[in-house]
Amino acid sequence: MSASAIRALFAVASRPEIVSFAGGNPAVEALDFEAVEDVVRQVIRDAGATALQYGVGQGRPELREHLVTVMGAEGITAHADELIVTAGGQQALELVASCFVDPGDIVIAEGPTYVGGIGALASCQADVRHVAMDDHGMQVDQLEDLLAELQREGRRAKYIYTIPNHQNPGGVSLSVERRHRLAELADAYDVMVLEDNPYGLLDFAGKVYPSIRELIPDRTIYVGTVSKTFAPGVRTGWIAAPAPVRDKLVLLREAADLCPSSLTQMVVETWFATQPWREQIDSFRDVYREKAEAMLRALDEEMPPGVSWTRPSGAFYIWMTVPAGIDTDDLAAKAIGRRVAFVPGRGFYADGSGGDRLRLCYSQPSPERIREGVTRFGELLYDELALVRAVYGTHGAPEPRARPADPAPSRGQEPG
Amino acid sequence: MSASAIRALFAVASRPEIVSFAGGNPAVEALDFEAVEDVVRQVIRDAGATALQYGVGQGRPELREHLVTVMGAEGITAHADELIVTAGGQQALELVASCFVDPGDIVIAEGPTYVGGIGALASCQADVRHVAMDDHGMQVDQLEDLLAELQREGRRAKYIYTIPNHQNPGGVSLSVERRHRLAELADAYDVMVLEDNPYGLLDFAGKVYPSIRELIPDRTIYVGTVSKTFAPGVRTGWIAAPAPVRDKLVLLREAADLCPSSLTQMVVETWFATQPWREQIDSFRDVYREKAEAMLRALDEEMPPGVSWTRPSGAFYIWMTVPAGIDTDDLAAKAIGRRVAFVPGRGFYADGSGGDRLRLCYSQPSPERIREGVTRFGELLYDELALVRAVYGTHGAPEPRARPADPAPSRGQEPG
Repeated sequence: MSASAIRALFAVASRPEIVSFAGGNPAVEALDFEAVEDVVRQVIRDAGATALQYGVGQGRPELREHLVTVMGAEGITAHADELIVTAGGQQALELVASCFVDPGDIVIAEGPTYVGGIGALASCQADVRHVAMDDHGMQVDQLEDLLAELQREGRRAKYIYTIPNHQNPGGVSLSVERRHRLAELADAYDVMVLEDNPYGLLDFAGKVYPSIRELIPDRTIYVGTVSKTFAPGVRTGWIAAPAPVRDKLVLLREAADLCPSSLTQMVVETWFATQPWREQIDSFRDVYREKAEAMLRALDEEMPPGVSWTRPSGAFYIWMTVPAGIDTDDLAAKAIGRRVAFVPGRGFYADGSGGDRLRLCYSQPSPERIREGVTRFGELLYDELALVRAVYGTHGAPEPRARPADPAPSRGQEPG
Repeated sequence: MSASAIRALFAVASRPEIVSFAGGNPAVEALDFEAVEDVVRQVIRDAGATALQYGVGQGRPELREHLVTVMGAEGITAHADELIVTAGGQQALELVASCFVDPGDIVIAEGPTYVGGIGALASCQADVRHVAMDDHGMQVDQLEDLLAELQREGRRAKYIYTIPNHQNPGGVSLSVERRHRLAELADAYDVMVLEDNPYGLLDFAGKVYPSIRELIPDRTIYVGTVSKTFAPGVRTGWIAAPAPVRDKLVLLREAADLCPSSLTQMVVETWFATQPWREQIDSFRDVYREKAEAMLRALDEEMPPGVSWTRPSGAFYIWMTVPAGIDTDDLAAKAIGRRVAFVPGRGFYADGSGGDRLRLCYSQPSPERIREGVTRFGELLYDELALVRAVYGTHGAPEPRARPADPAPSRGQEPG
């Protein structure tokens, strides 16, 4: 499915009659809007002339100090000087790609990986090599094979792009043991790591994993964002990078859009300075945990045999594999007809694979709507599998399950 | 002077004891901050969940409608569908360069031209060819010679980059006759035009010139910004482009930073929807006219013979030429010692020329401070010319003028 097709899908998915598991929008409605109103008023009242003026390309020092504190909440140490404020995590990924990648250069990434990360790499004509994941994240033994193979060919990847925590779209995290192994391999093969961490603070149990940056600070470029801990509408992310890389990135950033918005930067820094932001993250976490539990419970009950999926311990995403004979591009179009939406898998790979995969995001619908959407989706899959069986025979396709004439009534879900 | 040296200069120039004619910051202090506070409150109170969420890459339709109205204030017709909201004019220039320019491709630009425009072209490794300006803007006869020469070589420029109104840094506007000739040449040689128009509404007499877009809509990509008509701190600009170009630019934009900030977009659209924005532009215009008059009067009185400068009829800038023997990179460093700052000329050319030129921007200091800064700068130039005369003989260098031991007291300037 092309970028424009995905855009069309998102547009349709936003219709109210459709239960959308498509876009990865955070549940900003869980924010305290009166507090946000106070924050924006305060910014204009106390420092309007600064908020409405140009700023500097690296971003405001005051904001960078707060972002260092946010990194500290995951046990990551950094200095404000190392940080560059970016227009969300996406600009960070694009700047890093622009800085390092010439056409044809190799970049290693998890397969599947973030669509926007692939987009940034594609715009620099990178040669993206995927390393498969399992329930413990990137399979580092496969990474080692790939690094060794490249070395034999006299080539070297520009960097390894990883989303170690609650990966988008995989819904899994890199195990602690594998983090250490990844760091060792990066050292041994002299490769940089791009650590993209939008979801690290959204573990349902509040668990934090060791950051790659903490293991190998000199060869890690770290990307953060406030999109999932505060709000994406302020378009505020950051890069923490070693000084020579930071300086190059600032110049690229100035060519790209001069400087971040002073207004949104000051809104973010005033949010972190004056509001109980840790409690806000706790409440986001509770919201997503409740939705994840509703989603997993519904999937367990409603999916036909032969369908498998990951079981997230944080953030927004479930990655699903459907049986042979079903193409998820086609399935996504049919799902719209059943008033449910998801993102088909091919967009999450640079190499055209993923036709039997799809991403479900549960961050937006209520637990009741999640149950409803999964029920509709389960019905579609039963019907599709019956079709597959009719065409290809029974091999691998399940028997249709007896279903009630009407969908089961929606049930509210409690966090377990 | 390198980009990092210019940044260091700007940092020093922001010290309070220095009269800065360096950065092109608009006079945002002329805004009604209570009105802005009302606007930001209204955005969060009425639609906080939308303002804090992701948006679409092309930008909000509601904002694009208002931007069409702003274009209409200069007699430019457009449809909201044609527009892409960008992170200021800079992102627009960068996206257009990324879309059209492969390394080594030729782009024609005025010489001098906007530093950020050169930066965007440099990041795409464009081969920038300058066309000189005079008091009526780009010299279109020279443009014709260049286009003909390229045609003979079997080459073609990707586009002609022009800032037709109150050019940065030239401080001049393209004459009406030359606009028509530019349009004819673009047609005859089948070249696109990138029309960058940050200052069109800031003519001191309220005069508007015909837009290149109105003359040749199918081959013009138009760039606007609210940085000079509202505030740069919201980082909001736009591109109006023919549909096939627009679609490519939206994809590039999504790879670059996903989407514009919903919050800043809604602040801008609410500003235009609820506030007397035309009157605000009138008052900006009055502020800049008063400053320009103070600046020109002071220059007429304080500059040594042999120094020449443009006489702006709008916006922020005066472009100065100093006598032979003075290098404006060196002069800028010495000026800091005299507590006055400007931007030396080389940064405004892609080819290293401009060592005898400099830009003075009068948008920030008060008329009193302008007089003070010009007096300091005049003293420096007299001293430098005396040095030049001592080294090279009297040829071309003026006699020092008798000056009072203390600077003349500052005089407030009235608009003439």
